[in-house]
Amino acid sequence: MASLLVTRLPDVVYLCGFTGSNAVLAVTAKHARLYTDGRYTAQAKQEAQGVRVVIAKRSALEQALTGLVNAGAASVHFDGDATSVALLRTMHETLAKHKKKSPPRFLKPLKHSLVAELRMMKDAEEIACMQAAADLGSRLFDHILAFIHPGVTEVEVAARLEYAARKAGAEAMSFPTIVASGLRSAMPHGTASTARIPRRGFVTLDFGVILSGYCSDMTRTVHVGKATLRERKAYEAVREAQEQGLKAVKAGVKCLLIDRACRSVLKKHKLDKYFTHSTGHGVGLEIHEPPRLARQQETRLTEGMVVTIEPGVYLPGYFGIRIEDTVSVTSAGANILTKATKAWIEL
Amino acid sequence: MASLLVTRLPDVVYLCGFTGSNAVLAVTAKHARLYTDGRYTAQAKQEAQGVRVVIAKRSALEQALTGLVNAGAASVHFDGDATSVALLRTMHETLAKHKKKSPPRFLKPLKHSLVAELRMMKDAEEIACMQAAADLGSRLFDHILAFIHPGVTEVEVAARLEYAARKAGAEAMSFPTIVASGLRSAMPHGTASTARIPRRGFVTLDFGVILSGYCSDMTRTVHVGKATLRERKAYEAVREAQEQGLKAVKAGVKCLLIDRACRSVLKKHKLDKYFTHSTGHGVGLEIHEPPRLARQQETRLTEGMVVTIEPGVYLPGYFGIRIEDTVSVTSAGANILTKATKAWIEL
Repeated sequence: MASLLVTRLPDVVYLCGFTGSNAVLAVTAKHARLYTDGRYTAQAKQEAQGVRVVIAKRSALEQALTGLVNAGAASVHFDGDATSVALLRTMHETLAKHKKKSPPRFLKPLKHSLVAELRMMKDAEEIACMQAAADLGSRLFDHILAFIHPGVTEVEVAARLEYAARKAGAEAMSFPTIVASGLRSAMPHGTASTARIPRRGFVTLDFGVILSGYCSDMTRTVHVGKATLRERKAYEAVREAQEQGLKAVKAGVKCLLIDRACRSVLKKHKLDKYFTHSTGHGVGLEIHEPPRLARQQETRLTEGMVVTIEPGVYLPGYFGIRIEDTVSVTSAGANILTKATKAWIEL
Repeated sequence: MASLLVTRLPDVVYLCGFTGSNAVLAVTAKHARLYTDGRYTAQAKQEAQGVRVVIAKRSALEQALTGLVNAGAASVHFDGDATSVALLRTMHETLAKHKKKSPPRFLKPLKHSLVAELRMMKDAEEIACMQAAADLGSRLFDHILAFIHPGVTEVEVAARLEYAARKAGAEAMSFPTIVASGLRSAMPHGTASTARIPRRGFVTLDFGVILSGYCSDMTRTVHVGKATLRERKAYEAVREAQEQGLKAVKAGVKCLLIDRACRSVLKKHKLDKYFTHSTGHGVGLEIHEPPRLARQQETRLTEGMVVTIEPGVYLPGYFGIRIEDTVSVTSAGANILTKATKAWIEL
């Protein structure tokens, strides 16, 4: 009898609903057991579905592994992406204590991350959760525009946005909120700092909320004060690139083609060398999931995948612009979850 | 020439100051190189110190490894805790392309997590950062008391606290804020929910802020409305346990003894079976770091370690109480960083 050991926390959430910070799932054809510790006795009872909960006295992993050996498992499959070299060593040491029962090639790394692949394709219920999270994100964008003024610090804008998110029921932000203004907008991942919004320049807002465990992800770039022609043209180029990216999305299309669609628009505008990152990534229980939308990515989009389309240009010493939507993939094309406007906004 | 590959992000921050989300550090006796990607060109230039920055075209890890091979490294040490089984396989595949130059046992897991051990002992500058973060935490606790009323949701209390934290300059919260009220206080890790603060019962607040990259961590439990004698006695028992834990802290003492000090006070009060987790953990650039203060932990406290002391009791169906300080270890004892009052508070 083969068996499966699940150690990556979001995989555990996906499979049984338990959200504690210490969890190992042991699955055979006959049973599924969730191992956690005494901090989570009440929470596991409340949350975990379809599994028997075991409160481990020592290491949840060791006890789960021992449980599988005692249940007569012939092999234990594990996810090599979610298992550290040190953890694997601990697993081997645990097995050494049960030498008689466990054959030499008992531990087997999975060829593909089994649960990660299941998680890539979202069902209707998951997409509904992600739509709700994206809708909250869009409302927050509309809400925060009123607070963006020259002289206000980036971190205050982020604080306001996060406060509104929490009040609206967000469990947490998906990642550290990015508010990058003026010269700082040229940093693709400039998390909100104590820098003040300048009298004129771009402000890039990249943020997400978590609702029912699912992440939203959205970027909009607005301009404070009067823009130069160069700024305005660059904005329209990014917007065009993002729209061509969206148009390229369809079940069956290779991920690299979405990336190429965005890049070729920027090339036309001689801005492609300033697009220094990939076009997008999967989103779900985690903010970064497979697939990747980038060069050389041969994976084909499948119905139910939820991915971001987020081209940007970054001109160091001048400015940066990024526009990002989260979309679900259908056979007809991209279903945009993040509905906030992408029109030119001058505050 | 031996070499070291550093892949755990907080280790990279610790060694060179770069905070981007994609980073690999390759260190030999002759040079130190930071590999990241095009998103971080500007940020790496701004932040990274004492290293040469390389913007990797493909995988930062593969390029770092190739760099070490070409520099004539005789071996590459890596941290088995920070390296997944899948990543190690990729590393082997990369090396296979340079077969002539890399001997068979070229990749060597470190016996101990080298950088993690360095990080355990905080220097004066680090402790000053952690004191500043802890001070902000204490001020936030005082501030939030005014917002705790029957009928207010836990998530609104968390939102207020997080907003004040961000306005005061916190880069982020150290972890999802815990606001667990009434029956929910019996869940040691009940992150703030939409449940409302009841007319009477405990409210446990466990939260932390990040300042200059360093985490604070603090728990206080207050009571809304008139407490029963049993509740009041349990609070005083936890407070006594926490104080005995603090008194046991001193450079040279084994971690298990701090845990035992807390547990024996609770045993005296017949509450030890409700203390369902360990006594504490290290804190620093990450919210959970070595050492662990728990049973069987033979590690000795050393001057400069920063650890939490956080006993609690959880009576399912009734209530829960936890009191937590973060302290730095000195030869004279515990230096308490989190100075907010632990006196009985009835709101």
